[in-house]
Amino acid sequence: MENYAIGIDLGGTKIEGALIDRAGAVLAQTRQLTAVEEGVDAVVGRIAGCIGALMRDAQPISGIGIGAAGMTDSRRGVVLMASNLKWENVPLRDLVIERLGAAWAQRVWVDKDTNAAALGEMLYGAGQGAKHLLYVTVGTGVGGGMVLDGRLYHGATEGASDIGHLVLEPEGEVCGCGKRGCLETLASGPAIAREAHAALERGESSALVALGHDGLSAVEVVEAARAGDALARSVLARAGRYLGIALAYYVDLNNPECIIIGGGVSAAGNLLVEPARQAVAERALTNNAKAAQIVLAGLGSESGAVGAAALVWHGLQAQGES
Amino acid sequence: MENYAIGIDLGGTKIEGALIDRAGAVLAQTRQLTAVEEGVDAVVGRIAGCIGALMRDAQPISGIGIGAAGMTDSRRGVVLMASNLKWENVPLRDLVIERLGAAWAQRVWVDKDTNAAALGEMLYGAGQGAKHLLYVTVGTGVGGGMVLDGRLYHGATEGASDIGHLVLEPEGEVCGCGKRGCLETLASGPAIAREAHAALERGESSALVALGHDGLSAVEVVEAARAGDALARSVLARAGRYLGIALAYYVDLNNPECIIIGGGVSAAGNLLVEPARQAVAERALTNNAKAAQIVLAGLGSESGAVGAAALVWHGLQAQGES
Repeated sequence: MENYAIGIDLGGTKIEGALIDRAGAVLAQTRQLTAVEEGVDAVVGRIAGCIGALMRDAQPISGIGIGAAGMTDSRRGVVLMASNLKWENVPLRDLVIERLGAAWAQRVWVDKDTNAAALGEMLYGAGQGAKHLLYVTVGTGVGGGMVLDGRLYHGATEGASDIGHLVLEPEGEVCGCGKRGCLETLASGPAIAREAHAALERGESSALVALGHDGLSAVEVVEAARAGDALARSVLARAGRYLGIALAYYVDLNNPECIIIGGGVSAAGNLLVEPARQAVAERALTNNAKAAQIVLAGLGSESGAVGAAALVWHGLQAQGES
Repeated sequence: MENYAIGIDLGGTKIEGALIDRAGAVLAQTRQLTAVEEGVDAVVGRIAGCIGALMRDAQPISGIGIGAAGMTDSRRGVVLMASNLKWENVPLRDLVIERLGAAWAQRVWVDKDTNAAALGEMLYGAGQGAKHLLYVTVGTGVGGGMVLDGRLYHGATEGASDIGHLVLEPEGEVCGCGKRGCLETLASGPAIAREAHAALERGESSALVALGHDGLSAVEVVEAARAGDALARSVLARAGRYLGIALAYYVDLNNPECIIIGGGVSAAGNLLVEPARQAVAERALTNNAKAAQIVLAGLGSESGAVGAAALVWHGLQAQGES
């Protein structure tokens, strides 16, 4: 009888909520600004407000999943560190349960947003049918979420699937993490914008010249590439190649059947993904490379909230097994 | 009542068998030459002979585990490819069951030897208490076996944990797999011998000079290093550093709590492992690096057969869950 789940995608700018059924159909959506500056209680209040609004659209609700942009402890439902939210060690699950009432004590799950997305893609998106998959978001940062044997894998201390910080160029740019040459410094949106900017500074010709060098964004590079601009395409191909080099490590270590590329930069489509596929074919063992389909994300703009709602099915299944 | 397991370590040169109890105590051992040249049937006959001999030492036997040096399909119990054995697609499990009788139909497990070793180390060796671990053998080749959430992880097509073929130096030496600069070309026994040889050819001074350049083995390099030879130590440090660079990728992707280094070259101890630890500390995210203890294998020369026997407990547990 309990066939509905609520998902909340908690980002630094906005909170997006969705009510879904078991088949992943979105029955209702809601959205609020996060307004981080008002503090944790206010943000939790707005999350509870979204949940309350969605609860009015269908009953009974099996549970609530929250995907947070940051590091989480999924076992305790704590947001360990989320720079966009300026949160550290926020016991989000317990705070939400406090608002909703004790009846929800075993029915709220918190995980990092990339894990929610991995699950959403497996159940309702490009990963349907796969039991071993990696989701990679390429946007402002580069992050991952992994499913092994049909279940999210968190690692020993919830640090798994951090593909964005694999060091690929040890003498490269300094990353936010303090290391140099992480994948994130080579393939993220800011990295793409920086690379295009540098090429323009060197005087290379491109439709991007008309946009001016300084405020250049990855979105503009992707648009120019799609319109056929050679420089923009070579910048994306370089990012895609680095992405593929990192994916090849994943492929030989974890032998997935499916790798799903999402995030803002994935709007570049095959201009990003095809060079990644080529790098995997070159760098990984033949059998492992062949086993791993590399595809674009299948869920659209509601993917964050839908993936978060999928945390409910995943959590209930784990409860059933334990 | 069923408290004994038989393990068979099937290598290209010899077959080693052990009878263990639940606590991992070795009650009996046996050994035969593999004599690959006599063909599959003869080898299977010798495996059955080892099993028969061990069965006389305790009853009842819960099952038989076989660790094979090569690629295996653990689900079907098939040795897919084992170059030392010159085997391809040998249905080893079924052949052994044919010899022992149908009563053993659900009681024989075949896996790659590095997976058996990973399991043995988790249950009885350096990985006791860990649920997320990687075992790496550094010997003639470099191979891995991984345990996630207390269970062996095979990947989508049994290609997981192939750490030896992560490409670390794309312009490096050609590897047996056809790619260039795999970890195996940088840290295996032959790679260590080759590197030492090259240094001697360049005229570097070392106690190894007295051994002559051509037949130099990794064992000799390890011995010289342990005796204090600076060149031998730097060769091992280089191998250890590359090992650590590959481990750092594993650490950020899979967040293990324990990494166990075995195989012949691990006789170098901290001369190999300390540079690996340093590389992981430099290259992986701080939290993930801290979570991952990097230690030497705890099981001795019987580790192959003991690990293989542990496949029995692992297999029975999986049967119980399904």
